[in-house]
Amino acid sequence: MRLDVFFTPAELQARTSLAEQTVVVIDVLRATSTMVEALANGARSIFAVPTTDEAVRIAQNIGRDQTLLTGERNCVRIEGFDLGNSPLEFTRERVAGRQLIMTTTNGTAALASVASAKRVLVASLLNVDAVARELAETDESITLVCAGRERRFALEDAICAGTLALRLYRRQGRRKNWSDAALAAAQLARRYVHSIERTLRRAAAGRALIELGFARDVEFCGRLDVYDVVPWFRDRQVAL
Amino acid sequence: MRLDVFFTPAELQARTSLAEQTVVVIDVLRATSTMVEALANGARSIFAVPTTDEAVRIAQNIGRDQTLLTGERNCVRIEGFDLGNSPLEFTRERVAGRQLIMTTTNGTAALASVASAKRVLVASLLNVDAVARELAETDESITLVCAGRERRFALEDAICAGTLALRLYRRQGRRKNWSDAALAAAQLARRYVHSIERTLRRAAAGRALIELGFARDVEFCGRLDVYDVVPWFRDRQVAL
Repeated sequence: MRLDVFFTPAELQARTSLAEQTVVVIDVLRATSTMVEALANGARSIFAVPTTDEAVRIAQNIGRDQTLLTGERNCVRIEGFDLGNSPLEFTRERVAGRQLIMTTTNGTAALASVASAKRVLVASLLNVDAVARELAETDESITLVCAGRERRFALEDAICAGTLALRLYRRQGRRKNWSDAALAAAQLARRYVHSIERTLRRAAAGRALIELGFARDVEFCGRLDVYDVVPWFRDRQVAL
Repeated sequence: MRLDVFFTPAELQARTSLAEQTVVVIDVLRATSTMVEALANGARSIFAVPTTDEAVRIAQNIGRDQTLLTGERNCVRIEGFDLGNSPLEFTRERVAGRQLIMTTTNGTAALASVASAKRVLVASLLNVDAVARELAETDESITLVCAGRERRFALEDAICAGTLALRLYRRQGRRKNWSDAALAAAQLARRYVHSIERTLRRAAAGRALIELGFARDVEFCGRLDVYDVVPWFRDRQVAL
């Protein structure tokens, strides 16, 4: 089994094809954490789309009263949308049984960029062990894609990818076919595993969120193995 | 002083401008190691160009007998060229006083991609401390650009960038304005500093070179602080 990590979706263009790959998309602060939270709280599914226009169009097609429009630009809720991108907003009361439509700066764009993969899973620190267990069942090549931050390396996504790699190694005992980036991510996870919350606060995305008043989100997204869920992305929707 | 690291030139498109930046280009296996070796052995300067056609054209303009055409594709010397990209070929006997023209898969392309920067330096493990000393003199923003391997993350370049960051920190005592990638590179350097040669052999670029018979190159490029030289890249040439 080959294991590779892309620290940013920008590197993806180097890759010929994802058609035979299982891809895992990671955006710890905050899109994939929020998706995991929403689905764990009973959301039916989440349309994950790159643009605001597309989100609004899908909402109109389904029926605006049937849907929750969610997402952010510059970390803040999009005007006219029901929810932003803070996982704390996605309570059971708000989302259970609802159809969500989400657009974010980095996370939903990353999902769109890997839509051609054979299978796309969604990971965050909140559900990292559940995803590792699912991956351990496959013999396919696995590619972990970090959403990053504005097309740049994001420490929290790298740590999540590395944690996933280490959990997979613990289950399979093999790392012969790890790429350089997979080895590096695993080292970063080893280094930071005991100080994840502090590290998230220090990372660029964490600092930006704290400055905007989202310190509780950073704390919330820094917790390991809270949910035993493995969201899939297919037909433009994330669901369990 | 801001310190940033790009693990691949692919990330560079995210950056608006390098015009106020000091940029350091790193391609440990092998282009920047070979450039350092050539200049330490007395080469006059090195035209670093992305394409074979351009290399040949410059050689014809200057006069083919005045120049050494050097470089590789798929790790192997380009047909009709005088030298490949193995630092061991760039002996004092071959290169002293000579005008070199070099084109390689990753390294010279990375140099071309940062040509708009205020200042571009060339680093490898062989001259990492000399470059750190030069950087410690500046208050400008510094960006370390890893050439990577076929547009992907390369462990040896990340370790070199991290070593440079740590040496700079040792001289300046500041790392407040380090990016996520700079923090990550420094951690990787800390982790691998005591096993650099083994790590280079395990990295994807190292394995590929060993398979092609260049094991001695990998060993050669894995040595720290061999030369006290700081090559600059300007007007398409690398020189001291």
